[in-house]
Amino acid sequence: MLTKQQDAYGRMVWDHLHGQRTSEIVEREGGFFDASGGAPNYFAEFKHWPKHQQAAMKYVRGRVLDVGCGAGRCCLYLQKRGQTVVGIDASPLAVRTSRKRGVKDARLLPFTRIHRGLGRFDTILMMGNNFGLFGSPRRARWLLQRLHSLTSTGARIVAETNSIYETKNPEHLRYHRYNRRRGRMSGQLRIRIRYQRYCTPWFDYLMVSPDEMQDILEGTGWRVQRFLKSSGPMYVAVIEKDSKAAN
Amino acid sequence: MLTKQQDAYGRMVWDHLHGQRTSEIVEREGGFFDASGGAPNYFAEFKHWPKHQQAAMKYVRGRVLDVGCGAGRCCLYLQKRGQTVVGIDASPLAVRTSRKRGVKDARLLPFTRIHRGLGRFDTILMMGNNFGLFGSPRRARWLLQRLHSLTSTGARIVAETNSIYETKNPEHLRYHRYNRRRGRMSGQLRIRIRYQRYCTPWFDYLMVSPDEMQDILEGTGWRVQRFLKSSGPMYVAVIEKDSKAAN
Repeated sequence: MLTKQQDAYGRMVWDHLHGQRTSEIVEREGGFFDASGGAPNYFAEFKHWPKHQQAAMKYVRGRVLDVGCGAGRCCLYLQKRGQTVVGIDASPLAVRTSRKRGVKDARLLPFTRIHRGLGRFDTILMMGNNFGLFGSPRRARWLLQRLHSLTSTGARIVAETNSIYETKNPEHLRYHRYNRRRGRMSGQLRIRIRYQRYCTPWFDYLMVSPDEMQDILEGTGWRVQRFLKSSGPMYVAVIEKDSKAAN
Repeated sequence: MLTKQQDAYGRMVWDHLHGQRTSEIVEREGGFFDASGGAPNYFAEFKHWPKHQQAAMKYVRGRVLDVGCGAGRCCLYLQKRGQTVVGIDASPLAVRTSRKRGVKDARLLPFTRIHRGLGRFDTILMMGNNFGLFGSPRRARWLLQRLHSLTSTGARIVAETNSIYETKNPEHLRYHRYNRRRGRMSGQLRIRIRYQRYCTPWFDYLMVSPDEMQDILEGTGWRVQRFLKSSGPMYVAVIEKDSKAAN
């Protein structure tokens, strides 16, 4: 579990909730630094979400597991719509932030620790680039099988990722090549999150093109039903349980 | 002189000039990270400047030296107003950015290398928190004496800084104490600028309260004529040459 000092993301959303100016720094291995859109994105109300995320909500039905619920924006939206939603996050202060904002069921739980005790879900939601929480193709396949057994017949995964090959940044393209050379997927980013002096441990965050996503799903009992594109590289995949596959 | 890899600030403004999304990361010793307001501030037109910076321009007269001219926003404004202004910056790409944006006289020159060859100035301008470029109280006093000999009778220094004791951030207050314990001024920040994989060398950046500024000026031949306050901790000092002091 993250220590207080490691809970950089959580501290950032917690401080934002309490009116402080914050910024989320993403450090990629090799000394590449960037600031994310930060807290305002994590707190945004539905009307301010990007269009493809709004469109994605049409595919979210039944009982929902929100993976990496963050500051709770998706949970709050779905609750308002009358759906039952369980939010999980590996960050203690993100979970506290979600609860304080009104999320009814936010739990401190890393994605890799999901279990039958959570109940059966009709939709697994992974907005805000959270397909990345699959981490690696290997872990993705393992988790997809776990999700298969924790979901109802006809369940869906609604997940957002970044079609990484659309970048023209030579630094990113060089990093993709570096990853491939050492047997990782191009978009298997090794990063850590920094906020002030808080810093998460290094972790893998997986970004995939539509083709790569389909490759990963192969043989897992899940398949892409449709892609929802944005004006940029971000897109949402609506993934359905393959009825022919063994459950 | 900064190498290409060290010119993080310059690369950032250069990339912004060419339409790329950028963010400026400030790393303080001890692993404290923050994102600055970034390129939009460095490119802002006069009408979008904070009010106290706009007010400061009333005190900028005659031939001007813009210290740390960055992307050239002050030079461009003063040129438009019909003044002669020399912009200096230690960043090669900042100077190129200034020139490309229309600054007539932007020179690659660290503040510590100013010399008589630049001519005589009526105003020394240090906007955008650039009082910080004095670095330390010792270097400030040395540079103030140099500025005394490079300026006309009745010359002014118009400089912006941050009244650091107004913060409530315990992390900053702890850093102030740490600095005092080792004989530095509270706001003598040791920082480096990061942008993507670009990273400047570590440098000292000095932020002072109004009282501390007056202490530093003592015996240098300069004295505060007035302070222009903002709604936050930032303020501008209008500093005048003391006519009684030897020139």
